[in-house]
Amino acid sequence: MSEIPYKIYLTENELPTHWHNIRAVMPEQPDPMLHPGTMKPCVKEDLLPLFCEGVVEQEMNSTDEFIEIPREIRDFYKMYRPSPLVRAYCLEKELGTPAKLYYKFEGNNTSGSHKLNSAAAQTYYAKKQGVTHLTTETGAGQWGTALAMSCVFFGVDLTVYMVKISSEQKPYRKICMETYGAKVVPSPSDTTDSGRKILAENPGTGGSLGCAISEAIETAVKTPNCRYVLGSVLNHVLLHQSVIGQETKAACDMYGIAPDVIIGCAGGGSNLGGLISPFMADKLRGKNNIEFIAVEPASCPSLTRGRYAYDFGDTARTTPLMRMYTMGSGFIPSPNHAGGLRYHGMSPILSKLYHDGHIKAKSYVQSEVFEEAVRFARAEGTLPAPESAHAIKAAVDEALRCKETGEARTILFGLSGTGYFDLAAYDSFNRKTMTDHVPTDAELEKGFETLVKV
Amino acid sequence: MSEIPYKIYLTENELPTHWHNIRAVMPEQPDPMLHPGTMKPCVKEDLLPLFCEGVVEQEMNSTDEFIEIPREIRDFYKMYRPSPLVRAYCLEKELGTPAKLYYKFEGNNTSGSHKLNSAAAQTYYAKKQGVTHLTTETGAGQWGTALAMSCVFFGVDLTVYMVKISSEQKPYRKICMETYGAKVVPSPSDTTDSGRKILAENPGTGGSLGCAISEAIETAVKTPNCRYVLGSVLNHVLLHQSVIGQETKAACDMYGIAPDVIIGCAGGGSNLGGLISPFMADKLRGKNNIEFIAVEPASCPSLTRGRYAYDFGDTARTTPLMRMYTMGSGFIPSPNHAGGLRYHGMSPILSKLYHDGHIKAKSYVQSEVFEEAVRFARAEGTLPAPESAHAIKAAVDEALRCKETGEARTILFGLSGTGYFDLAAYDSFNRKTMTDHVPTDAELEKGFETLVKV
Repeated sequence: MSEIPYKIYLTENELPTHWHNIRAVMPEQPDPMLHPGTMKPCVKEDLLPLFCEGVVEQEMNSTDEFIEIPREIRDFYKMYRPSPLVRAYCLEKELGTPAKLYYKFEGNNTSGSHKLNSAAAQTYYAKKQGVTHLTTETGAGQWGTALAMSCVFFGVDLTVYMVKISSEQKPYRKICMETYGAKVVPSPSDTTDSGRKILAENPGTGGSLGCAISEAIETAVKTPNCRYVLGSVLNHVLLHQSVIGQETKAACDMYGIAPDVIIGCAGGGSNLGGLISPFMADKLRGKNNIEFIAVEPASCPSLTRGRYAYDFGDTARTTPLMRMYTMGSGFIPSPNHAGGLRYHGMSPILSKLYHDGHIKAKSYVQSEVFEEAVRFARAEGTLPAPESAHAIKAAVDEALRCKETGEARTILFGLSGTGYFDLAAYDSFNRKTMTDHVPTDAELEKGFETLVKV
Repeated sequence: MSEIPYKIYLTENELPTHWHNIRAVMPEQPDPMLHPGTMKPCVKEDLLPLFCEGVVEQEMNSTDEFIEIPREIRDFYKMYRPSPLVRAYCLEKELGTPAKLYYKFEGNNTSGSHKLNSAAAQTYYAKKQGVTHLTTETGAGQWGTALAMSCVFFGVDLTVYMVKISSEQKPYRKICMETYGAKVVPSPSDTTDSGRKILAENPGTGGSLGCAISEAIETAVKTPNCRYVLGSVLNHVLLHQSVIGQETKAACDMYGIAPDVIIGCAGGGSNLGGLISPFMADKLRGKNNIEFIAVEPASCPSLTRGRYAYDFGDTARTTPLMRMYTMGSGFIPSPNHAGGLRYHGMSPILSKLYHDGHIKAKSYVQSEVFEEAVRFARAEGTLPAPESAHAIKAAVDEALRCKETGEARTILFGLSGTGYFDLAAYDSFNRKTMTDHVPTDAELEKGFETLVKV
C-alpha cells in the first residue's frame, strides 16, 4: 500500500455512476409519509402537484439499491466533483493523537457545501419535466446558493425564501444567489398567506426553516408550471447525497482505509445520510462494525432530546406527515449560528436508523463547536462552516479520547462546507460575545404540544 | 491521448520539487534595484534589515533556473495543492466558440487565491531565521489572509496593514485574518509616522497599497526581530508563484495541451509571472510561440499607460528603487473593486519582459469585467475574484474572436482567486450602481511627476 496522500482525489472516470439507496438494505423501512387530510400513506399522486416527477419516483423507491445518475447530472458533477478525501495530518499532529483522522471535504464549490449534489439532480428533473420555475427555502444559504447555481445552469427560474435572520446575518449569501439569477425573499414575507399569518402572530420573528418552507410550498402550488424543492430531510435528497459516501468508500477501498467511526453533522440529515449510505449498507449486512455518530446543536436537539413521532415538515402544517425525531413543528429554535442545523425535524431514514440503534447521536453548544472550528482552521487551513464544525468537535473529542487510551482508531468525518459566509459568527466567537442556548424541558414540551396525534 | 477531463489534478507526488526562476533564462536582466540614498545597486546587506535572509538570497539570484522547494513548504503546499487545471467546457458551450479554454484555478483555499504559495514560503524562511514577527500590507485581503494562515501554521506573529477602504468594503476579510490570529490595522493609521503623515495630508483618504506598505515597512524596521514581507512585485515572490506555472505545464504536457495564448491579470504581477514562468522560458529558448497577455484595470493601467522608470514601491518613498512600469508612487488609483490590482507599479521582471516585447498588455473598465465575471460564474459554477475576472474578460474576448474567424486556438488563463469576499462589488454591479473610472492624461501626469530622476 502506497503512503496515504494529504488528499485522495478520484479521477472523473471514477465518479460514481449510481446513487446508493440505503432503504433497499434496511431490515425495516421508515414509516410511510401520511397524507395530512386522510392520514393514509401518501401515494405518488399526492406528491406530484408539489414535487417533480423524477424525485417523487425516487422518494417512493425503497427497493432498488442502486439508481443510475443521468449523464447530464454526472456532467454537472464533473464541474466540482469528485471531492477530496483528506487525511488531516496537520490536525493529528496538533492534537498529538494516535488516531487517524480523515474528512470528506464538500466545500470546494461556490455554494460552499454538499448541497449542490441534490440541487443539480432536482433541477435536472424539473427541466426534464418542463417545469419552468422552482421555489425553495434556505436557512444558512448554502442550499439556496446551490439551487441558484443549478437553476441558472439548467435554465429554470428560482424563488428562494430565505430565513429572515439569516438574510440579515448573511447579506453576502443573498447577493450571491442574486448574482446567479435567483429571486430572494426574506421569510416570513407578506407575499404569501402563510407568511402574513406568521407575521401577524409574531411581528418581530426572525423566521425559521419551517416558516420559509411553508411560503415556498404555497408559492409552488399557486404558480403555474412551478414545483417546490427541498434541500434535506426527504429520501430522495439523501439518495442524491449518497454520491458523497460512494466516493468516500471508493477512496477508502483504494487505500485500504477502514473507518472505525464515521461522524457527520445532522440538521435535516442529508449530509450525514449521504456520507454513511454505502458504509451503513455494509454494516447492516454484517460486513463492518463502524460506529456512526450524528452531531447536532444543543439548541436544536431533535435526535438527542426530540420525540420519534409523526410531524409536519413545516410550521404552517401543510406538508405530508413524516415519522421522524422532532421537536414539534411549532418549535422555534434559538438563533444558533449554524443555520443549516436549525430545523425541528430529522430525515425519516436517519430517524429510523437511529431508533433501531444503528446510529448514535451527540449534541454540543455552539461556543465549544467554534473553539474546534478555529483550531481546525488554523491547523488544516480550511475555515469550516459552523454546521460542519459540529462534526469536527465530535471527531476531535474522539481523537483526544484515543490519545488518553492510546487507541489508533480511524475516524472519518464529513466536512460538509466552508465558513466564508459565516464570518460574523466567527467574529462573535473571537470577541467572546457568543452565547449558548439550551432549551429547557418546558420549552421542549411547548414544541411537543404541536405534534400531531396519529 | 485520453479525453481531457473537466479538471486535471496532478498527484501529490507530481507536485513540483523546484521553483522556476525565469531570470536565469532572460536574454537581458531587469535593471537592478537601487539604494535610494546612494543610487547604487542594492547589495544583500541593504535588504537584510527589511527582509528575511532566505528571500533576499532568492531576490538576488538571477543565475539558477531551478531552486529547490524545502520539504516543509512542500508539505504545506500539500494541504491545498496541486490545484486543478480546468477545461472550461461549459463556458466554451455558452460562448459557442471553437477555441479551447483552460484555466488554472488557484482559489480553492481559505485565502481565496494564489497568494498562499508565497506566504507559505516567506513565513517558512522567517521561522527558519528565528524571526518572531512579520508585518505586511493587504489590499483586497487575499495576501493578508494567506499570510495569516501561514503565520499561525509556522508560529510567527503577524500585523497586517489593510488598505482602509478595503477593510470597510470587506469586513469579513478582516475577521478571517483575525480568526487566523493576525492583528489587522486599517491603513493609514496613527500607529506609524508614515501613517500619521498621510493622514495629516489627506484626512479623508481611503488609503492605498503604497501607504500600507510604508506603514508595514516602518513597523518592521522599528520592531525587534521583525521583518517585512510583500505579496507581489518582487523577484522572489514571482519565483514562489512559479509553482503555478510548473504545475500547469506538467498538466499540459501530460495531456498534450499546447496553449496558443496565456492570459493573467496583473496588479503587482505575481499571479501572471508565476503562471507563465516555464512557458516563457521555452519561448525565450525558441521552443514555442505563445502569446502572453497581461490584463489590468483601466483605472490603474501601469503597463498600458505607465512609464518604464525607476520608482519607489511605496507612497512614503522608503523602499529601494525598482525600474518598472509605473504610474508614479504618488498616483492614487480610484477605488476600483479589484483591490488586488490597485497598485501603481508592476513587477520588474514582467516590466522588462513587456518592455522587450515578450508580453502584451490590455486593460478593461470594471463594469465590462464584472459582466464576464457573472457569465463565467453562471456557466462554470465558480464565482471569480474581480481581479481574476480581468483575465476571464480577455480570454472571452479572444474566444469570441476565434468564433468570428473559426480558429480553434487553445487559450489558457489564470483564475487566481474566488470572489466570496467581493460580493458587495457584485451587488453594485447587479444593481447597476458600479461606475468606471479611467484616469485622464492630466491625472497620469500628476502621478508621473512623483517619479524619481535617476
